[in-house]
Amino acid sequence: MQLNLFSEIRQDLKQVEAELFRYVDASNPLLAETSAHLLRAGGKRLRPAFALLAGKFYNYSLSRLMPLAVALELIHMATLVHDDVIDAAATRRGIPTVRAKWGDRVSLHTGDYLFAQSLLLIARYEDPRIAQVLAEVSVQMCQGELQQIATAYDVNQSTRDYFYRIKRKTALLIAASCQLGAVATGAPAHVVRSLDFYGYYLGMAFQITDDILDITADQKELGKPIGGDLRQGVITLPVIYALKHSPCNGRLKELVKKREKTEDEVQEAIEIVKASGGIEYAFRVSNRYLAKAKEQLRKLPEIKTRDTLECIADFIAMRRF
Amino acid sequence: MQLNLFSEIRQDLKQVEAELFRYVDASNPLLAETSAHLLRAGGKRLRPAFALLAGKFYNYSLSRLMPLAVALELIHMATLVHDDVIDAAATRRGIPTVRAKWGDRVSLHTGDYLFAQSLLLIARYEDPRIAQVLAEVSVQMCQGELQQIATAYDVNQSTRDYFYRIKRKTALLIAASCQLGAVATGAPAHVVRSLDFYGYYLGMAFQITDDILDITADQKELGKPIGGDLRQGVITLPVIYALKHSPCNGRLKELVKKREKTEDEVQEAIEIVKASGGIEYAFRVSNRYLAKAKEQLRKLPEIKTRDTLECIADFIAMRRF
Repeated sequence: MQLNLFSEIRQDLKQVEAELFRYVDASNPLLAETSAHLLRAGGKRLRPAFALLAGKFYNYSLSRLMPLAVALELIHMATLVHDDVIDAAATRRGIPTVRAKWGDRVSLHTGDYLFAQSLLLIARYEDPRIAQVLAEVSVQMCQGELQQIATAYDVNQSTRDYFYRIKRKTALLIAASCQLGAVATGAPAHVVRSLDFYGYYLGMAFQITDDILDITADQKELGKPIGGDLRQGVITLPVIYALKHSPCNGRLKELVKKREKTEDEVQEAIEIVKASGGIEYAFRVSNRYLAKAKEQLRKLPEIKTRDTLECIADFIAMRRF
Repeated sequence: MQLNLFSEIRQDLKQVEAELFRYVDASNPLLAETSAHLLRAGGKRLRPAFALLAGKFYNYSLSRLMPLAVALELIHMATLVHDDVIDAAATRRGIPTVRAKWGDRVSLHTGDYLFAQSLLLIARYEDPRIAQVLAEVSVQMCQGELQQIATAYDVNQSTRDYFYRIKRKTALLIAASCQLGAVATGAPAHVVRSLDFYGYYLGMAFQITDDILDITADQKELGKPIGGDLRQGVITLPVIYALKHSPCNGRLKELVKKREKTEDEVQEAIEIVKASGGIEYAFRVSNRYLAKAKEQLRKLPEIKTRDTLECIADFIAMRRF
């Protein structure tokens, strides 16, 4: 995500970044180290950015938004560390994972720790909706992860299974970021609602694009090997399309189901998916979500931030990494 | 824990049990299965029991206490599932662990899910102390786990390291159970405070006894092999004592440090610890904590529940499983 989209909140995002580092500097030296390692690995800080942008639609106050912004990134980081345990991932964003550096046990507890730290921040808010929404999203995120495990390598899953999963894995937390940014500033219900929906549709499109990139991206730009989803048995939208519509879908089924794939087999599966029109299909679906996201923006006050949120939607349609 | 200690809350504990089962009956079939498996494995439901008992000191109401009681057990269960991932444990309470039955990935997310579910319950309370205390305890519990990893097999650790660890692993959540049971019923500050301290001292004694039993218990009564801590490099109070005072402490150091111990080596270490007087020392420390716990009770209103809490302290001094 190019930072120029965030120009109006760039200074405030820097303060969020500093606060994140201050916050994870635990009394326990091992936790301080693993958490700082995670933070240094970077990331787009999308969720804090959305919370701040959403806050612009009413009574913007960085100090009101700060605990939420930090908490959102901590929750996101916690899920990443736990996913790396699960995926046995050696690198993320081109940098060794906590798991690869310190092992599964440390990763598991680092994830738990980051999540627990987020609760301390959330407990600062008087408005009960913030804790309620984030608790609900956390439950749903776990259900998404479990569904991903249950449907791994299952070539009979439907697009409905896929949408169920990406909603929980990605869209709900982005929706919560937008929604709660508005809640934290005391925005009226219709503003909260439109931002919630905007975040949800945008999050869906974001994850679909992510899944497309896992097939089409340049490995260097992406910072990780492509075909990761196929290797782990995670069946994404372009693959579901190809499994149904490709003339080679029999062969694709065989390949997708294999628990251990050679590099050549991953490549072959990717070629079949690309030739099937699955990528174009997934882009069409993503664009439909982005159009819905933009529709929600029309209900919001006409401020500069509204244009920014529109640009973000356009950017997602074109992103390459 | 013999249930006759809980006679005054037995009916209400049954309702908590039913609510636990109802609550984990997730829409996701895999989560419903793993969670129910965990619940069926049993457990003493100590934390809900303490919350209910603490509630007796003011304006007792099961409906006010129910979300807290269920949340406390869910948090406890979440830590158990994650510990089993970490310990690669095959059984707990004589029953296969979630990890052994469904694998690490499912266990990790089941733990996350149970924890997230507890947040939904906690979010129902208006009093901000409940969320705050449980967030703080959760952070501390992670720090305890990380310290356990960092000090594993370290024969130079002090009793201070040990107390740091068991406070976080066990005592704080029991203290929170007592404290928040009072908070949930609107009890005055001095009652909340005494129950908090009672729970803390009792929790310390409880964990010390647990650690003694891991060395001295009958395997059948305990429901798991003894010497588990030694095998995992977790150095408990009797061992710390023996490492300092046993005439065979050189040999004990060697044994404790070994990452892979034979059954004979575990037995040999246990014999050295027993001969050193470490068990008696640990019992003395535990009894000192129990005396402090009872002291706190004297500050509470003289109701029947006060006697029950005193009996629980006596019971811990004598427990064998």
